[in-house]
Amino acid sequence: MGDALFQRVAILGVGLIGGSLARAIRRGGLAGEIVGGGRDAAHLRRATELGVIDSYSTDLAQAVAGADLVVLAMPVGGMAGVMARLAEHLPAEAIITDVGSVKGCVVDAAREVFGEVPARLVPGHPIAGTERSGVEASFDHLFDGKKVILTPLQHTDREALARVDRLWREIGADVVHLEVAHHDEVLAATSHLPHVLAYALVDTLAGMQERTEIFEFAAGGFRDFTRIASSDPGMWHDICLANKDALLSALRAFSTGLGELEKALEKGDSEYLHQVFSRAKSARDNFNQS
Amino acid sequence: MGDALFQRVAILGVGLIGGSLARAIRRGGLAGEIVGGGRDAAHLRRATELGVIDSYSTDLAQAVAGADLVVLAMPVGGMAGVMARLAEHLPAEAIITDVGSVKGCVVDAAREVFGEVPARLVPGHPIAGTERSGVEASFDHLFDGKKVILTPLQHTDREALARVDRLWREIGADVVHLEVAHHDEVLAATSHLPHVLAYALVDTLAGMQERTEIFEFAAGGFRDFTRIASSDPGMWHDICLANKDALLSALRAFSTGLGELEKALEKGDSEYLHQVFSRAKSARDNFNQS
Repeated sequence: MGDALFQRVAILGVGLIGGSLARAIRRGGLAGEIVGGGRDAAHLRRATELGVIDSYSTDLAQAVAGADLVVLAMPVGGMAGVMARLAEHLPAEAIITDVGSVKGCVVDAAREVFGEVPARLVPGHPIAGTERSGVEASFDHLFDGKKVILTPLQHTDREALARVDRLWREIGADVVHLEVAHHDEVLAATSHLPHVLAYALVDTLAGMQERTEIFEFAAGGFRDFTRIASSDPGMWHDICLANKDALLSALRAFSTGLGELEKALEKGDSEYLHQVFSRAKSARDNFNQS
Repeated sequence: MGDALFQRVAILGVGLIGGSLARAIRRGGLAGEIVGGGRDAAHLRRATELGVIDSYSTDLAQAVAGADLVVLAMPVGGMAGVMARLAEHLPAEAIITDVGSVKGCVVDAAREVFGEVPARLVPGHPIAGTERSGVEASFDHLFDGKKVILTPLQHTDREALARVDRLWREIGADVVHLEVAHHDEVLAATSHLPHVLAYALVDTLAGMQERTEIFEFAAGGFRDFTRIASSDPGMWHDICLANKDALLSALRAFSTGLGELEKALEKGDSEYLHQVFSRAKSARDNFNQS
């Protein structure tokens, strides 16, 4: 085990992402030992039985004791609280990283808890997941070929950054570095807004008189929306509030565009509809090729 | 061939749907002969070479001569024009059906062209398709297990309806009968509105400053939207205008719901977001099980 990238990795929150990361680390022989942490002992026992983690503790101090890497893999809404409880127990040399879908709130929480953002905190976001959740849904190839965005700050420790970067690359991910605010704007547009639209659409249609037929005849378009809207509501609630400003800005831009399309439809403005639809298809096809 | 359901089927518009229907009819031995009709001789020649149709004509009168089933499989926007040109050439006993995504406009066009909707016109809509289009994308299993909605009127000929119904069942589709207006309302919600949202989202994001990263990091949600938005813009333009009223009504309901969600997000109304997201997920999960 002397060659492992980390001696002891503590993963706090062993769900789909934390569990899949643990499995991938094990597959790659990247850690001497993987310890799970969280509140639910039965759940952590299950993760141990599944061979996802080596051992666990519901006591945060114990879970992170002796760890040289601590991964915060709980829902975004829970991170500030865990950081606060973790602060005095963190091994001095431990690198900390997280897998949250929003980065500004993680950095803000760290600043609040620690006085300043620790140099050995490397904020991260693997763009991977499924609609399923929980450790039972985890698998060791979840991150293969997926993008992982790291959002280091000016003063982030270079060696800590390099090691977290290497961890994800060894696992098979494609690592990219972005600024915190930029990450949050881009993800608001590509991930958070689409989820809000899917939830809003499914909820609107479920309230219609024809709802039985609507779900029965869920055609191409709507079926994709319903799949997106089957994602964990609690997790997405957290994400939306955590990235409220960037999400609102993307949502307003979308609503303006949709409002214009509605006006064009009212007027039967054939040309306008054609322009928007064609422009959207070209944008998609162009980017898809590159 | 004496046992075939139809002697001679004329398919006007041999694209993804028309071509797949021709292939499925051939696979099932449901017609003695399949003739293609349309404007583009090179395209129809290609369909003949691919074995999708037996022969073709760019002359409408010739294409439908002797047919006992005429299928209108061109884009919705082209149906009124074809019906007008077809009126005096239709064999007296021929059953007519169509595959348009909107049914009100087809019935209206028929009423206009023929004085009243012909008793042997059976309006239909197979809920099947892919983002690809054209005869090259057609395949004989496209309709397997898919819903086909027929929207007969009060005076629709019962035998004509029964034969079109049987054709789709023999092909493997699940046939359902709905009223014209009901069909158009349900499809506005489940298919037309989702496409409009996808086009609007992709077009909005493609206009943002961060568009390069947005498409690069197209995560779960957005990727599904871009796929929907890669559908044929001309076809969807036709559909939206043809089903304008029902689509506008669904669009307004959606915009109202989205507006409420936006207000809740502005206020940080955690409870409201949680309610909408959970309700959407439950609706989806409930209907998916049934």
